[in-house]
Formats: sequence, C-alpha cells, structure tokens
Amino acid sequence: MNHKNTYLINGDFTQRISPLDRGFAYGDGVFRTLLMRNGQPDSWPLHYQKLVADCAAIGIVCPSAELLISDMQQLFSVTENQPEVAKIIITRGEGARGYAPPAITNPTRVVIKSAMPKYAPDIFVKGVDLHQCETRLPEQNKLAGIKHLNRLENVLARMEWNDENLFDGLMLDQQSNVIECTMSNIFARFDEVLITPDLSSCGVAGITRQRIIWLASMLSLKVEIKPLPFTKMALADEVIICNSLYGALAVSKVGHKKFPVQNLAKNLRDALKV
Amino acid sequence: MNHKNTYLINGDFTQRISPLDRGFAYGDGVFRTLLMRNGQPDSWPLHYQKLVADCAAIGIVCPSAELLISDMQQLFSVTENQPEVAKIIITRGEGARGYAPPAITNPTRVVIKSAMPKYAPDIFVKGVDLHQCETRLPEQNKLAGIKHLNRLENVLARMEWNDENLFDGLMLDQQSNVIECTMSNIFARFDEVLITPDLSSCGVAGITRQRIIWLASMLSLKVEIKPLPFTKMALADEVIICNSLYGALAVSKVGHKKFPVQNLAKNLRDALKV
Repeated sequence: MNHKNTYLINGDFTQRISPLDRGFAYGDGVFRTLLMRNGQPDSWPLHYQKLVADCAAIGIVCPSAELLISDMQQLFSVTENQPEVAKIIITRGEGARGYAPPAITNPTRVVIKSAMPKYAPDIFVKGVDLHQCETRLPEQNKLAGIKHLNRLENVLARMEWNDENLFDGLMLDQQSNVIECTMSNIFARFDEVLITPDLSSCGVAGITRQRIIWLASMLSLKVEIKPLPFTKMALADEVIICNSLYGALAVSKVGHKKFPVQNLAKNLRDALKV
Repeated sequence: MNHKNTYLINGDFTQRISPLDRGFAYGDGVFRTLLMRNGQPDSWPLHYQKLVADCAAIGIVCPSAELLISDMQQLFSVTENQPEVAKIIITRGEGARGYAPPAITNPTRVVIKSAMPKYAPDIFVKGVDLHQCETRLPEQNKLAGIKHLNRLENVLARMEWNDENLFDGLMLDQQSNVIECTMSNIFARFDEVLITPDLSSCGVAGITRQRIIWLASMLSLKVEIKPLPFTKMALADEVIICNSLYGALAVSKVGHKKFPVQNLAKNLRDALKV
C-alpha cells in the first residue's frame, strides 16, 4: 500500500507513531469519522465539540480546532468533487511503561484521509439487512457514549459475518436491549415517536444521532431516549440506522426478522442534507 | 526522550507504527510484560503459550517464538546484571478504515525494553497499600482473561490516585466482587485455602497467578477459583497480589481496611524464585 500524503501526525507527513504512544499501548485516546465535501468537514462544529468532550471525559486536552482544520486543509482539496472521509485520532501521547499517565502529556493528533465507502445504490431505496451480533456490549458508565480507541468489541462483532449483503451488525447489551450497530446508531419509529437507545451505560453517542434528535420535530416526530428491548424494536413501524457518512438508512431485516421500509430514512437524509 | 535501541518493530530498529495499524486504531492486539534476567525472559514458555492463546482468542496468528526470542536477543544483553523489563505487543497489523479486518493480515510485532520499576525495599517486608478503585470492570466473556490492548479502564482506574504510597488499585466488578488490581492479580487466604477470583467474565488471567495456582500445594495450600465478594475478602487471614515483575506482595491495606501481613507473600516469592 502507498500511504503517501494520506495522513498527518502532529501536522507532519513524515512522522509515524511511537510504540510508546498510549493510543497504541492502551487505546488511550478518542477518534471521529467525518464526511468531507469539497475538502470541508461536514458538521464540523458538532464534530469538534464532541471531540473536545470525549477527550475531556478521559482527561485529555484536545488540540485546537485551528490545528485540526490546518491538517485537513493540507490533506484535502477544495476542488475535489467526490466526497471523501477524514478520520481524526487524538491520543494522550507518549508515556513510559505503566498505566499512570506522565505528569506532562503531549497529545498525539492524527488526521487520515480515505475514500468514501462504495455504497450499493439500492440500499438508499430498499434499505439494508443487519447481522444480529452475538458479541454483547458491557455496561461501563465511565466510557459510555465516548468514541474512544478501545474498540475490540466492535472488531469481534464485525468479524462475526463476511456476507457482503449484510451492511452492519446490531449490538445488544447484556439485558438484550438494542444499543447500536458496529458503525451506526439506531432509531425505531412507533407512530410519530422515534425511540433511540439510552447510551448512558454503553455505546457511542454519534453526532448524526444527535442531529436526528434535534431535527425530528421538523418531520413531526417526537424523540424518546430510553432503553429499547429487542423484543420491542421488533414491533416498530420502521427502523433506521445513521452515521456521518451515509446519513440515514432504512433497516429491512435483522437476522431473519423483516422490517417495513417506508420514507423515514429518505426524509432524514433530506433533513440531514447528506 | 531518547528511545534509541529501546524497541524493535517487526525486528527493525528503524520502523515505527503506522496510524493505520489496527493496534493503534482499535486496540486490536494483545501484550505481555516479562521480567528479563541476564537478558533472558523469565517463565518464557508460559508467557509464549499465553501470548499465542490471547492472539488466538481474537483471531490473530501469533509470530513464532524464534522471531520474538531473536528480537529479545537484539535488545537485551546476557551480561546485564540488573533485571530489566520486556514488553511484547502483537497487533492484527495494518488495515483500511473500518472494523472488518483485511482478508490477509500481517501482524505487527513490537518488543520494548524498559528498566525495572524502583520498588521501595520495605514493601517486601511490610506489604503494600491499595487504592480502592471507583472504576468497575464490566462483564465481557468474549474478552475476559485476555491481556488485550483495550486498557482504558485500567488507565482511568490508575488515574484515580496520585499518592506514591498506594502501590496499586483494587478493581471490583459491577456486583462488588474482587477481580484484580490495575497491574496485578490477587489471592485471599482463609486458613489453608487460597481463593483467587474467577476471571471468566472480566479481568486478565496473568501467568504469575497461574504459577501460584500450580505451586500452592508445595506450600500446603489448596486453591479455589471462584467469585470473591469484597465483603468476603475483608475477612481473609492474608491477601496478596502478584505479577511477573515483583512476584508476590502482601496487601496491608485497601482504602481504610487493614489486612494482617504474615509469610504468604514471602513464601510465594521464594517458591516463584522471583
């Protein structure tokens, strides 16, 4: 693989990661995935606010927005017509062996440029099928909601299927409540009420989920954030998943269970302007 | 910091870690910490066996023992009289964005050389005080026992104290069972019975814990591996912690609760020959 000019570490094309970086040693950091259009990050204020909040939650001082924007300007071109993907990783920086962070830390900042995933066009019409993951999400209120670098559960969940027709995998907690998918948040519609799982014990609270919570009233929908047992989701009028890259997609099937596909995902994509 | 000649990546002193390495992106890997004496790893067969098992548990093919031994021979000198520390990290290697591992993976192998921690001599006589961690360990049977790179809980637990007189922090599960310390396993003695927590739902099953389980009968002790509620541990005749570097240490206090210090830790250190 030629990774020339596809990532910047602390603003430098020639730097690499030290194995003493705590992001590598312990997953001691956070990240974000951003949709880039004409070299500009979509929903940047929300992404940056979430990055700062996630850093703060584990005691990392997030680098300034100016530095990150400068990195993105170096990697992405305003004349690029195809949407692209930026991944930002912030770690606590290098440290000696042992879990205690050094007295003075210098966070490591990484920006990586990738191509957009190649979505099959019909998923925006027919919806997507989901794998029902066997890997469960454990309760950890200290880390819930944070998009941190400890993602082995997502990796193990994603390794459960290799059928290209399965778009993502639905993950439950240990009480069989729906939490999220490996790379998506989830909403279930019951009449005019959208329920999205409470993420105070596990899961990642993504910014597209937040945007949908805020814009639901534009679609005459009321949002409730609460536990969503899988048995309850099975009775929903519609189920949709969301993330920053594809916006929103209808769920047509989870395992063998079929769901009706109506207009919610399309309406949300229009409202999100993805 | 000058890290010259203190680590090897895939056998190479000049390599660094790519930010596309899944160890960095997701904590998708495992590690070990080894005591080195005269340039030789202590208990190598057990460490290597555990490294292979931990890799296998998350679907990584562990590099050969020959490669790792060759790396250690390059980093450590047989004429070194002071004990030193080797850390071995194995990751799933580089991959594109997304949780799905690439079809063909090339694991990344890192060996890092460090100095031994400077232990205060009196801890081997008087025992050590432990912080009672507020951070709890969640249940995750897919990852329990494995020394993987998702260690944010240990980091957050370790960040709870900065009193140098506290040697380690005791971590409980969500039912207030004792599981381990941030860098140690734990045993509680009741008469001639040693209880060590069952680690089938969370925690790291270290090799010194395993060695103590095997050698306990030499000390006329019987071992039981089962849940150990904190309220039960509080009634123990002695409590000890263990890891590969210091061997075994008596616990004299957890938070405000005092424990009797007798001969168990010393006897275990003698039996472990640490």
